[in-house]
Amino acid sequence: MNSHSSDKKGILRRLRRIQGQVSGLERMVEDDSYCIDVLTQISAATAALQACALALLDDHLHCCVADAVTRGGDAAREKVDEASQAIARLVRS
Amino acid sequence: MNSHSSDKKGILRRLRRIQGQVSGLERMVEDDSYCIDVLTQISAATAALQACALALLDDHLHCCVADAVTRGGDAAREKVDEASQAIARLVRS
Amino acid sequence: MNSHSSDKKGILRRLRRIQGQVSGLERMVEDDSYCIDVLTQISAATAALQACALALLDDHLHCCVADAVTRGGDAAREKVDEASQAIARLVRS
Amino acid sequence: MNSHSSDKKGILRRLRRIQGQVSGLERMVEDDSYCIDVLTQISAATAALQACALALLDDHLHCCVADAVTRGGDAAREKVDEASQAIARLVRS
Repeated sequence: MNSHSSDKKGILRRLRRIQGQVSGLERMVEDDSYCIDVLTQISAATAALQACALALLDDHLHCCVADAVTRGGDAAREKVDEASQAIARLVRS
Repeated sequence: MNSHSSDKKGILRRLRRIQGQVSGLERMVEDDSYCIDVLTQISAATAALQACALALLDDHLHCCVADAVTRGGDAAREKVDEASQAIARLVRS
Repeated sequence: MNSHSSDKKGILRRLRRIQGQVSGLERMVEDDSYCIDVLTQISAATAALQACALALLDDHLHCCVADAVTRGGDAAREKVDEASQAIARLVRS
Repeated sequence: MNSHSSDKKGILRRLRRIQGQVSGLERMVEDDSYCIDVLTQISAATAALQACALALLDDHLHCCVADAVTRGGDAAREKVDEASQAIARLVRS
C-alpha cells in the first residue's frame, strides 16, 4: 500500500496540467517568444510542481508516516527520517 | 529579435528532458510508486526547470539587456527593471 | 512541553552563528564591500536559516507530531496539518 | 565605487530589522516557544533576507553592470557572468 492512493486522481490532474505548461513552454521557445514571458511561465510551472509535491507530502504524512508511528519502534523513526530528508530536498530545490 | 535565439536549441533540449521527467512522474503515480520516490523526482524536475530559467536569464542579460543598456535612456532602465522583476519571481518560486 | 528541547542547544548555536553572519553583512555594507560579495554572504545566511528550520522541523516531527499521532484522533490530524502548513511556508520562502 | 551606495541606508535598515528577527528567534528558542511559531518566524526572516538580496541585486544591475556594459568589451561580459552566477546562488539558496 502506498500513501498517495487517497488522492491519486488529484495528483495526476496536477501533473497533466504541468505537462501542458511544459509543452506550452516548448512552443513559446520555438515561436521565439520574448524571454521574460518564457521566464514567467517557468516560474508558474515551478510553483505548480512545488504545490504538487506539497500535496503528495501532506498525504504521505497523514497516511504512511502516521501508520508507521502508530505501530512504533525503529520503523517509525526511519519513516520520519525519510520524510525529513524528502522535505530537505524540496526546501533546497 | 529576441534574446534566447543564441541558445534556442539548448533551451529546447532542456525543456524536452523536463517534459520526459513530468511524463515519468505521471507513470510513477499511475503505477502507485512509493511517494518518497515520486517526491525525489519532483525535486529533480524542479531543479531542472530552475536551471533552464537561469540559462534563459543569462542569455537575456547578455543580449537583450546589454543591447538596451548600450542604447541608454529610459528604455535601458525599463529593461533592467523588467529583468529584476523576473529574477524576483524566480527567487520566490 | 515543546518538541525542540531535545536539541535546544544545537538550535541556539546555529541561531547565534546566523546572528554573526547578519552582523557581518551590516559591516560589509557599511564598509562599501563589493555587492557580489555581500550577495554571496546573504545566500550563505539564507541557507543557514533554512538548515536551522529543517533541524527544528525534524525534531518537531520526531517528538510533537509522533506523540500526537500515537495518541490518535482529531488532535493527531490537526498536528499533521499544522506541520504540513509549516513545510509549505518553508518551501515557498 | 560600489553599486549599493545609492541605497546604502535602505539596505542597512533592512539588515538591522533582520538582525532583530534573528535575536527574537534566539529568545523564542530560549523561552521554549512552540516550534511551529519558531518555524513561522524563520520563514519570515528568510523572506526578508531574500528581499534584501533582490534590492541589492537590482541596484547592482542598474549601476555596476550597466556601467560596465556601457564601456563594453570583455569587462562587460565578465560583469554580466558574475551577476548571473550570483542570481543562480540566490535561486538555489
